[in-house]
Amino acid sequence: MNKKLIGVDLGGTTIKFAILTDTGEVQQKWSLRTNILDDGSHIVPDIVESINHHIDMYEMTKDQFIGIGMGTPGTVNFANGTVKGAFNLNWRESQPVQELIEAGTGLKFVIDNDANVAALGERWKGAGNNSTDVVFITLGTGVGGGVIANNHLIHGVVGAGGELGHMNVQPDGYLCTCGNRGCLERYASATGIVQLAQDFAEQYVGDSKLSAMINDGEEITSKIVFDLAKEDDYLAVKVAEKVGYYLGMAAANVGNILNPEFIVIGGGVSAAGEFLLDFVKTSFEKFAFPTVRESTSLKLAELGNDAGIIGAASLAKKFM
Amino acid sequence: MNKKLIGVDLGGTTIKFAILTDTGEVQQKWSLRTNILDDGSHIVPDIVESINHHIDMYEMTKDQFIGIGMGTPGTVNFANGTVKGAFNLNWRESQPVQELIEAGTGLKFVIDNDANVAALGERWKGAGNNSTDVVFITLGTGVGGGVIANNHLIHGVVGAGGELGHMNVQPDGYLCTCGNRGCLERYASATGIVQLAQDFAEQYVGDSKLSAMINDGEEITSKIVFDLAKEDDYLAVKVAEKVGYYLGMAAANVGNILNPEFIVIGGGVSAAGEFLLDFVKTSFEKFAFPTVRESTSLKLAELGNDAGIIGAASLAKKFM
Repeated sequence: MNKKLIGVDLGGTTIKFAILTDTGEVQQKWSLRTNILDDGSHIVPDIVESINHHIDMYEMTKDQFIGIGMGTPGTVNFANGTVKGAFNLNWRESQPVQELIEAGTGLKFVIDNDANVAALGERWKGAGNNSTDVVFITLGTGVGGGVIANNHLIHGVVGAGGELGHMNVQPDGYLCTCGNRGCLERYASATGIVQLAQDFAEQYVGDSKLSAMINDGEEITSKIVFDLAKEDDYLAVKVAEKVGYYLGMAAANVGNILNPEFIVIGGGVSAAGEFLLDFVKTSFEKFAFPTVRESTSLKLAELGNDAGIIGAASLAKKFM
Repeated sequence: MNKKLIGVDLGGTTIKFAILTDTGEVQQKWSLRTNILDDGSHIVPDIVESINHHIDMYEMTKDQFIGIGMGTPGTVNFANGTVKGAFNLNWRESQPVQELIEAGTGLKFVIDNDANVAALGERWKGAGNNSTDVVFITLGTGVGGGVIANNHLIHGVVGAGGELGHMNVQPDGYLCTCGNRGCLERYASATGIVQLAQDFAEQYVGDSKLSAMINDGEEITSKIVFDLAKEDDYLAVKVAEKVGYYLGMAAANVGNILNPEFIVIGGGVSAAGEFLLDFVKTSFEKFAFPTVRESTSLKLAELGNDAGIIGAASLAKKFM
């Protein structure tokens, strides 16, 4: 029997687990609520216990596993497998995650940040078609990314590689949480899209349901913006176009630097689907170098929430 | 005795050669004029003859060499070592460079494009300090680049990785030879800087020697612009500042994607030195993600014209 991989996707509300074959087929999935009390000190013991419990429950043994891979928020130290600055886990100080999980499970363990792990997942079993060169842009509350080139994740010198949400797309634009102005994240995240819509509504006096909602003080979301845009609401279309413009420009610059085979767009906002992607492509084609325009393809992510556990498991293939 | 490397830097006017130790010390250098007559059909035979001749002349034998690395203009097919579209060599059609040089010299041969090879050179023995993650931006007639991440050059899916000159820095800006508008190359190459100066001069009525020269129809160069800027000529300083602004923005976006340890700026225009680099740094700091600002350093290239032969030779280390 071929040995299995374990993938763990650690988030601020849920910890997802999966057992996969070494070819990436998910065989078992389960999840836990993340207990962030007491400075997040229960998280690692909970993970260890849950893995050990499920291996017993499935009547499997440790030697049937290649190892465990995990995606985490925060900043990963790759040399020693520690994590710090994961504020949604209450992990302010460095946590010896690898050491504790290896000791507690007896299995080899490898960790990377969540956006990188999702990139690996989409590359392996999703839109990335197992290509050697794939960039993943995830549009959620923020905008994150992962870059795979020559078959390897690019971490950079201190792990800040893949900070695609902080590419500048609008000099002197909206103020970002990072302190700079005009970052992609301020225009293509769920909150950025809402801010764009509010700004556009202020300057627009014509007929628009989106504009009317905003003027009535109703709470809007990026989903409402895209749903209205699909119904041809004038202002909503303008907002969607602008989001696509900035995303396409950023994707083109990524393409001009890396010429990946695929740039995959995922995360909650990407639920807007081909409708959004068409605007992104129009802008990408305007700004991409001709060879890049012809050889780098934009695609929607395919794995949804499973990208994390699948990509995390793929990290552990290095122990094969 | 340790074996040697041969580096070849093929350009439109000169072919440079060097014999290096496996630690990158240049022991012999020579060069030939590039004969581009007859569809560039003399170039490869000239290279073979020159290498064989010099090995004899230095009373060395083929088994004292690890192999030959070469940098070339045009588009390289890495799978079979062919080159096409090198218009300054008159190589329109695909040339079987690797096959002919291996057959003619009896040595192993590896080839990459000239900007990539210069990046490898600066990484190995120049400003890149032998780091695993280095980006090289070369400012000449055009703007080119090479990206090294995780110790490997990034070619991308069809070899268009590193097209840093075609990052967009000014939507709807100057028209580029690639067909797009607002590429970095149009603002930071020798010709781009001259165009910026001419545009600035048209809109400026104050006192400036640069402005006076342009209005008198004198031919200006990027060197003249920087020399005048160093003398505090008002308009020239404005041009230098703008060049630095665009370069710094592009460098910040490269940094936000890749977080390299060094971004090295070379090529003829970089002769403007620290004066230009200071403007670039100011802009880089404005646009770089905080972690990138602190961990990615901008530096001037150190090897000058030798970057090509040294980087080319480093390609052949893979045969060690």
